[in-house]
Amino acid sequence: MRLSVSEICEMVGGELVGDGDAVVERVASLANAGPGDVTFAKRRHLKAAASSKATVVLVPERVQDMAAAQIVVGNPYFSFLKLLQLAEQEQRGHPRGVHPTAVLGEGVQLGKDVALGAHAVVGDRTTIHDRAVIYPNTSIGVYCEVGEDTVIYSNVSIRECVKIGRRSIIHSCCSIGGDGFGYLQVEGKHVKIPQVGTVEIGDDVEIGCNCTIDRATLDETVIEDGVKIDNHSHIAHNCRIGENSMLIAYARMGGSTVLGKNVLLAEDVGLTNDISLGDGCIVGGCGKVSRSWPAGSVLLGTPAQRMEDEKRQIVLVKKLPRLYETVRELKRSIEQKLGADEKPKGP
Amino acid sequence: MRLSVSEICEMVGGELVGDGDAVVERVASLANAGPGDVTFAKRRHLKAAASSKATVVLVPERVQDMAAAQIVVGNPYFSFLKLLQLAEQEQRGHPRGVHPTAVLGEGVQLGKDVALGAHAVVGDRTTIHDRAVIYPNTSIGVYCEVGEDTVIYSNVSIRECVKIGRRSIIHSCCSIGGDGFGYLQVEGKHVKIPQVGTVEIGDDVEIGCNCTIDRATLDETVIEDGVKIDNHSHIAHNCRIGENSMLIAYARMGGSTVLGKNVLLAEDVGLTNDISLGDGCIVGGCGKVSRSWPAGSVLLGTPAQRMEDEKRQIVLVKKLPRLYETVRELKRSIEQKLGADEKPKGP
Amino acid sequence: MRLSVSEICEMVGGELVGDGDAVVERVASLANAGPGDVTFAKRRHLKAAASSKATVVLVPERVQDMAAAQIVVGNPYFSFLKLLQLAEQEQRGHPRGVHPTAVLGEGVQLGKDVALGAHAVVGDRTTIHDRAVIYPNTSIGVYCEVGEDTVIYSNVSIRECVKIGRRSIIHSCCSIGGDGFGYLQVEGKHVKIPQVGTVEIGDDVEIGCNCTIDRATLDETVIEDGVKIDNHSHIAHNCRIGENSMLIAYARMGGSTVLGKNVLLAEDVGLTNDISLGDGCIVGGCGKVSRSWPAGSVLLGTPAQRMEDEKRQIVLVKKLPRLYETVRELKRSIEQKLGADEKPKGP
Repeated sequence: MRLSVSEICEMVGGELVGDGDAVVERVASLANAGPGDVTFAKRRHLKAAASSKATVVLVPERVQDMAAAQIVVGNPYFSFLKLLQLAEQEQRGHPRGVHPTAVLGEGVQLGKDVALGAHAVVGDRTTIHDRAVIYPNTSIGVYCEVGEDTVIYSNVSIRECVKIGRRSIIHSCCSIGGDGFGYLQVEGKHVKIPQVGTVEIGDDVEIGCNCTIDRATLDETVIEDGVKIDNHSHIAHNCRIGENSMLIAYARMGGSTVLGKNVLLAEDVGLTNDISLGDGCIVGGCGKVSRSWPAGSVLLGTPAQRMEDEKRQIVLVKKLPRLYETVRELKRSIEQKLGADEKPKGP
Repeated sequence: MRLSVSEICEMVGGELVGDGDAVVERVASLANAGPGDVTFAKRRHLKAAASSKATVVLVPERVQDMAAAQIVVGNPYFSFLKLLQLAEQEQRGHPRGVHPTAVLGEGVQLGKDVALGAHAVVGDRTTIHDRAVIYPNTSIGVYCEVGEDTVIYSNVSIRECVKIGRRSIIHSCCSIGGDGFGYLQVEGKHVKIPQVGTVEIGDDVEIGCNCTIDRATLDETVIEDGVKIDNHSHIAHNCRIGENSMLIAYARMGGSTVLGKNVLLAEDVGLTNDISLGDGCIVGGCGKVSRSWPAGSVLLGTPAQRMEDEKRQIVLVKKLPRLYETVRELKRSIEQKLGADEKPKGP
Repeated sequence: MRLSVSEICEMVGGELVGDGDAVVERVASLANAGPGDVTFAKRRHLKAAASSKATVVLVPERVQDMAAAQIVVGNPYFSFLKLLQLAEQEQRGHPRGVHPTAVLGEGVQLGKDVALGAHAVVGDRTTIHDRAVIYPNTSIGVYCEVGEDTVIYSNVSIRECVKIGRRSIIHSCCSIGGDGFGYLQVEGKHVKIPQVGTVEIGDDVEIGCNCTIDRATLDETVIEDGVKIDNHSHIAHNCRIGENSMLIAYARMGGSTVLGKNVLLAEDVGLTNDISLGDGCIVGGCGKVSRSWPAGSVLLGTPAQRMEDEKRQIVLVKKLPRLYETVRELKRSIEQKLGADEKPKGP
């Protein structure tokens, strides 16, 4: 990355104050930016911006007595995103072309400009569409499909018959299409129910590192377009996640559980099997949901309840020492009036 | 898969009603089955079965006015299992033979009909028995043993000296035999305790995707025959899991913890180190167990207690708003009788 | 391993009682040790030691009527550590040299005696320093650095620009340097914020199997020297973990959260984003921390509070049945005195 301040100003459509010829080579945070860096400041950080050693700072309004050059722009963070995207493209280590050690099965179809990293393995009759990127040591099974511009990072395992859409990102060490966890109890033993369904992942989906998405027993486990799933999450067999839902780290969905659109599961949320959450539901951090809830529900706790009920409950539990004290005093007062022979017991 | 309805009827030993010559090519769920599919219906779904577009439905009793052919059989789901097994065999992407890119160390012994996928690595002096299947990009260390008919999916890591029995299944991205987490505190630093034990996994064990089973500090971490472990579970050093126990997703066992036979840990259950659960114990979802319990205990909660105690506690906590109200009213009543100079405080 | 009892005695600097010529070939636990084994006994296990079938037992004081030879030494466990280290060196399956199937990108620099296992992949311009060991099927990205004597086990994924210090250990199936989980909400969609920072891991760090350490959005996610992290843990973007902190299994740190030095997170502890714990903080098992706490805090619960408060709360909640009973009796007593027309309601 090597841009003049003027070039950055033009790119983001802002107003330049300071030296347009200075050269920028890196993006950095406001706290750490130094010479050669471009950074940005939100309105509440303008004081810190004034003393920044960065070469140039994107700001929402002109700052007095600022050492660095400044570019005034409506939404500095959003403008800064463009610079981040540029930096990402230059920094990232996408493999290019098909590495000679990649192994292709029979009948594999590769689109234009597909990249297969070293030791990537693609099973028989799988199709990888244009510009998809598969990193080293990733294994893709037979009869799979990977959409255009999708990126699959290294050491991912994708089992047979899995379909992944376009512009999706699968991070490293994910397991996609592993068997669902299903057994019949026969004479005290667990007899495996073969899992012959599959997994369908839509467009613009992102799945974090070390996630597992199990194949359906029958039919499909479905991740709809625009869904974002954070690291260590687990989507069991036959789940469905509606469009644009977001699951933060360690989300756990039991078998056949269904999320509507735009659902938000905060970190460490568990959903039991065979339930559903309607569109726009929100489950707060560490919530464990054990029944279905209608659209728009906002939940918290174990077992999860409406957030206002859970918060009230937390307050009442915290006040228990006071309550016990009050009850003890009430008891004393009554005993004094009633005499010893009638006095109530405990606590 | 290509079977006539008559052939399916003969396979499951049922009574045919309808066209025996129709051809079936897929298995499907009752909700999604269409022409060319075989499905099944439990007793409570017979209404839905009547209007199914499947070619044939396995049913527990004859259904009137049914469009599809029907095969009447005692336990339709159990009979359907046979068809699932057939479909699984045809669909799955097991590698065959030893791929030329597989790497075998010195003194490796391979049984009959062993399959090693592309880029699989087998360490020195390891033995892989007859018909075992190792998927691509899986790494097996030195001095290991993999039993007959065992399947290890792709991108699994197995460290040195690990023993795995017969007909077991290890799903993708598992880590078997990683070091146990043990340190001595010496002058404020953590000094690693070398982990020189190993892991022994029995017959008919299934271990889900992205599980970790740590090697013992000394001796062995043991998973007995018939144990089933779901995704993202963690079995620490020196644990022992008794026969036919089942651990649902995110089971966590601290070091040296022991489970008896036929234990059931529901999803997201954690057990601290150095405790034991007797035969047949059940821990409900999200339970955190911090002491030992005898055989047959049924537990729930954090910290886990007997399920009836936990359930009663949940109810009492939910009723706290009412209790606070009652105590407030009691206080008011007493104050009216006792007069202001004697009135109790709070809550 | 093949040592005489005398050689062991000399190695640990103890006092020998018994046959110094007997030969030891293995280390074992006191419970399982037999002929040919060396083991150790803490003071409280001396009775068991007396009947041990081991060839030799390290003991803190001389034991009467002991069948095995004994070596009396100040701290038997600590002395036994030396034997464990010896056993570990002999047993472990470290690859040696650069395997012909390892793939090196352009400009890779390898130090002296580096080992690269089969199918290991090292990206362009990455440096691997002296004596570092990379196991099979591990993928290292471009512009990375791996320090002297560091060991990276198999099937690990390390993304671009990650720096790892000296004598560190990364266990199998870890994902280091995956994208942080960050999006801007734009017109109801999640727009990815490119993650262009990186990860820096210090010296003497150990990271368990299947952990994920995300790269920073900007700047670095930092794991300082001497930190030990157990399996299945997740360190989000821009976190910092101070020296010698220890995180037991399933530790979860939200984005930009900071730990001081010598912090201890017990198993299954979650920290939300943008908070900090000061030096020496301890969070008990399953604690969920949702605000910052000063140095030395000892926390427990969901949401976490000071351990003494949480423990008192647990006791009070367990006593609720008694409290309800008391309130019911108080109500009855008052009703008897006040008469029906004034009686309070509930619970």
